[in-house]
Amino acid sequence: MARVVIDVMLKPEILDPQGQAVQRALPRLGFDGVADVRQGKRFEIELEGPADEAALARVREMAETFLANTVIEDFTVRVEEPADTAGSGSSR
Amino acid sequence: MARVVIDVMLKPEILDPQGQAVQRALPRLGFDGVADVRQGKRFEIELEGPADEAALARVREMAETFLANTVIEDFTVRVEEPADTAGSGSSR
Repeated sequence: MARVVIDVMLKPEILDPQGQAVQRALPRLGFDGVADVRQGKRFEIELEGPADEAALARVREMAETFLANTVIEDFTVRVEEPADTAGSGSSR
Repeated sequence: MARVVIDVMLKPEILDPQGQAVQRALPRLGFDGVADVRQGKRFEIELEGPADEAALARVREMAETFLANTVIEDFTVRVEEPADTAGSGSSR
């Protein structure tokens, strides 16, 4: 079993209304000093086998054809170490 | 300027219908060997100042009170290195 994380974010040149809504709300809630907020998606995928090069190639294909809209979104694929699954509110 | 990433995921014991929908669609699309999929949110926050301990404490407070619903969601806060903002489809 291996965990792979796919992060999908809107491309920098694409307007992000969700992120803008968050950014505009922050000063009202007392949080200043935030220059920009972008909001995207995070997929945590548990593979049945190991995260070898073949499996990662399949995951990248999955991300490209299905999880991300590559016209407007960028994605990154990375293997997450088991120790990395920290609990609530942890800083890592 | 520093970039901080906040990942917000449903707690493991909370049902994730979005992730389940993705997981069920994968075999139909030709992707086998995926044991589980969880879908969450990723926020990329650009701070105007440095990501020092005080700033990170504020970001954690922001995540806890505003970005995550800590009844059902866990969050993690981490500083992202500038070199980490790789382009489309990169593996890191």
